[in-house]
Amino acid sequence: MVRDLARHPEICSINTATLGFQAPIDEVIEAVARAGFGMISPWRRDTKDLDVSAVARQIRDAGLKLSGYCRSPYIPAATVAQYRANIAANKQAIDDAAVLGAPVFVMVVGSLPEGSKDIEDARRQVREACGELMEHGRKAGVKIGLEPLHPVYAADRSCLTLLSEALDWCEMIEGKTDEPQVGTIIDCYHVWWDPNIRRDIARAGREKRIFGFHVCDWLVPTTDVLNDRGMMGDGIIDIRGLRTALEEAGHTGAVEVEIFSAQNWWRRPMAETLQACRERFSTAT
Amino acid sequence: MVRDLARHPEICSINTATLGFQAPIDEVIEAVARAGFGMISPWRRDTKDLDVSAVARQIRDAGLKLSGYCRSPYIPAATVAQYRANIAANKQAIDDAAVLGAPVFVMVVGSLPEGSKDIEDARRQVREACGELMEHGRKAGVKIGLEPLHPVYAADRSCLTLLSEALDWCEMIEGKTDEPQVGTIIDCYHVWWDPNIRRDIARAGREKRIFGFHVCDWLVPTTDVLNDRGMMGDGIIDIRGLRTALEEAGHTGAVEVEIFSAQNWWRRPMAETLQACRERFSTAT
Repeated sequence: MVRDLARHPEICSINTATLGFQAPIDEVIEAVARAGFGMISPWRRDTKDLDVSAVARQIRDAGLKLSGYCRSPYIPAATVAQYRANIAANKQAIDDAAVLGAPVFVMVVGSLPEGSKDIEDARRQVREACGELMEHGRKAGVKIGLEPLHPVYAADRSCLTLLSEALDWCEMIEGKTDEPQVGTIIDCYHVWWDPNIRRDIARAGREKRIFGFHVCDWLVPTTDVLNDRGMMGDGIIDIRGLRTALEEAGHTGAVEVEIFSAQNWWRRPMAETLQACRERFSTAT
Repeated sequence: MVRDLARHPEICSINTATLGFQAPIDEVIEAVARAGFGMISPWRRDTKDLDVSAVARQIRDAGLKLSGYCRSPYIPAATVAQYRANIAANKQAIDDAAVLGAPVFVMVVGSLPEGSKDIEDARRQVREACGELMEHGRKAGVKIGLEPLHPVYAADRSCLTLLSEALDWCEMIEGKTDEPQVGTIIDCYHVWWDPNIRRDIARAGREKRIFGFHVCDWLVPTTDVLNDRGMMGDGIIDIRGLRTALEEAGHTGAVEVEIFSAQNWWRRPMAETLQACRERFSTAT
């Protein structure tokens, strides 16, 4: 039995990317709270040039909790100086996540630096960096969530693609532990096609490494693999099936909607998109 | 040590899709032979409405061999009648492959039928059909090559995505055997990102199930995931590394270039594209 999301708005989270960054974060916070959701997941661009503690207060005052903070600057680099700069930028973002009260910092890890064809080297760089970021996060009280991305982004956005791979990395970075500091963010859009996904969700649950669950849908046809993602129910992903697998694996946390949709949802008023999210959480998630 | 392709044009194959189907097959055959290649891999659309045995004769007379015949009609269907029709169309194509003298029939298996979200059912349909097609191919003298496609095509073109999955299916369909009738087609474009690809290429070699090797490149950025594939060397795939892994795993067959490039190579004269292929086989493959 999966949880009835219509009765549990407190675990329904709106990732601010869903609203297309068309308004300042204070207006987004108000809109999300007014629409009846209990959680929000902001991006770094939402807080850029703002006093992060003021944003944290706005979120608290609106009665919202955070399900995460998105997302890491990319890690792999062609030079040591750039690699160190990327780590420093990630530490700053983790500090901001702590101020915001986000339980987890969502990492989209990056991939091949300019001119490189060595994806294994990019993977090594990410794992090495994550060891350092894990320690930084531990002190700050923020967990590290590795998000495997769909392989269509493997060249330029994420050398990490499979959930099994993400779980292997967690263990390489942190070892086996009952209280993991490093875990995974599981996004339907990125993993629905994986023939081993149910096996790997079960493993993620056993290893207590489900740190986030994102939903949206895969449209057929997809006109733009980056910014043509669908509202739950408009595509071909068996989202309810995947959510059932996650909850059977022990996931009790948020269900977070994150939709990149430049030609459709981002062009609509925020209230309309939030209303659609609310309905589809019940009917198609 | 990989084979020196500049000295071995007899194993360099041109998949006719590379030339954009801009000329009738007899002209394509002549152009490929004139450019000095030893092999060709035609598509069903090349032979549509033609006397297949006449095409077979043209290929032989030009001094060319076939590395494969592309590609299967999709298998999964919403109705039993359509499923049977799809199998029948595949049998016809296998018969044509036999007339042409193709050693292997390349299968792009299809995925979700209209209205379905059940990718596991699509996978079951394909495996079941392949049992029947394997027997048909055995009688005709044509092997079955299952081509895992990049997961970006998982919704509409191929429910089969990972090489490990393809090898698992081969065993489910045929069992373990020293003389496999069902094997895999390994295309750089589809599998380069897979963190387990080297492990799985080694397995494919041990199991004697490398039935084809396709090359092209992944461009950054990719403007169209279907028809914006790159000439070898123009993208970020470590093609030489993958070819080395295949040859170390025992692959002694063709290296076949297959490039879907609507905005670039398909707009150029065939001779120019073939000349580029020739050069890049030496320098970037």
